[in-house]
Amino acid sequence: MNLLLLAPAEVRDDGTVLLTGRRHEHARAVLRVQAGETMRVGVRGGKCGTGEVLSERAEGLLLRVTLGAEPPPRSGVSLVLAMPRPKALRRVVPAVASLGIDRVVLVNAARVEKSYFDSKVLAPAFLDGLVDLGLEQARDTRPPRLEVRERFRPFVEDELDGWAGASVRLAPHPAALAAVPRVAAERPVTLALGPDGGWVPFEVDLLERAGFTPVSLGARVLRVEVAVSYVLGRIR
Amino acid sequence: MNLLLLAPAEVRDDGTVLLTGRRHEHARAVLRVQAGETMRVGVRGGKCGTGEVLSERAEGLLLRVTLGAEPPPRSGVSLVLAMPRPKALRRVVPAVASLGIDRVVLVNAARVEKSYFDSKVLAPAFLDGLVDLGLEQARDTRPPRLEVRERFRPFVEDELDGWAGASVRLAPHPAALAAVPRVAAERPVTLALGPDGGWVPFEVDLLERAGFTPVSLGARVLRVEVAVSYVLGRIR
Repeated sequence: MNLLLLAPAEVRDDGTVLLTGRRHEHARAVLRVQAGETMRVGVRGGKCGTGEVLSERAEGLLLRVTLGAEPPPRSGVSLVLAMPRPKALRRVVPAVASLGIDRVVLVNAARVEKSYFDSKVLAPAFLDGLVDLGLEQARDTRPPRLEVRERFRPFVEDELDGWAGASVRLAPHPAALAAVPRVAAERPVTLALGPDGGWVPFEVDLLERAGFTPVSLGARVLRVEVAVSYVLGRIR
Repeated sequence: MNLLLLAPAEVRDDGTVLLTGRRHEHARAVLRVQAGETMRVGVRGGKCGTGEVLSERAEGLLLRVTLGAEPPPRSGVSLVLAMPRPKALRRVVPAVASLGIDRVVLVNAARVEKSYFDSKVLAPAFLDGLVDLGLEQARDTRPPRLEVRERFRPFVEDELDGWAGASVRLAPHPAALAAVPRVAAERPVTLALGPDGGWVPFEVDLLERAGFTPVSLGARVLRVEVAVSYVLGRIR
């Protein structure tokens, strides 16, 4: 935890915050904070700053926060992601949050098992917790927007064009010949990343018709979070 | 598992292999292979190819392998890595193996807890298992060389220059001003990646004297495996 994430309503009018639960426990047991010390803090969706520890007691950790710094710049990247296995999703969500991905839509695909959509990892409270882990890691306050679409074709045919807007549209695909291009920082990018084994030809076809260029990440098949990070490094 | 990794001694003179244990179980229960089907295989340290399933029985899975393809090209990147927490190491080793990192030396640092060096994750058999996961993921056969150095200063002062050889030497560091440069694919690169919280000034000093340029990854603090992948995407 490189930043202590606060909800807007937690900051009282006098600038103090009383932390309880997981964050109090982490500050006490792992960070071993003491009165007078300061910690990095950020308000979800808002500014970053510091929190001075006023007291640490059984009922909670009392901080006085000073906010004014902007969170890190956004990546400008949106992600269309074939629904990963629940175990993989638990790694992917913190990673994409830490990388400053703006939006993620989790879609069905031929090589996705239907049961993945019933996973408890997709419960909003669970997802929020995973997002927080990534924000805390990256010292960010702005969560990615997460959406789920259980049907691939209607999403790609009816929604994706509007969703992707003016972005550069890339679909990493093992059989692609084009390399991942560099994209100027001010141009948004939408990545369509397939499941283990890749998109099937029918899906690549639909993505191409929606303006996506298949690109190659090389001969290596990478885990989703490693692949997303690799592409981000390449395009920017 | 995108490739079934074989030990050289497992391939008999007639080109058959009898798989038992974890790989047999995976092929049976997850891949659900049947006689006549083929699977991607690779010999550790050697070639890739396909394995035709001759039979699947309780005693094992009998394959006939045809080898001839080269494994994916190497990244040309070596890594000096501050010893991660054991839990993080379990994620990092498969990731660096999947990315084709050539060599990793796990070093001590001021912000590394001494107890990390006693972790059971560092047992050679355990590390080999983690490396295999990464190779199987990336369809690679060539494992990175892993070494451990429990003292930072003697390693950096006495060994690192020879170890890094003619490579471009970069040390990602939060306070650095220079961005990560692009490096031509034929030039090797050595990355010195610090612990959570980064290298301390004394360590950055020593690394600079050893020819490392501090570079910035931006305002985000990334998990080790995400950071390595991001840098690889950037430099190549």
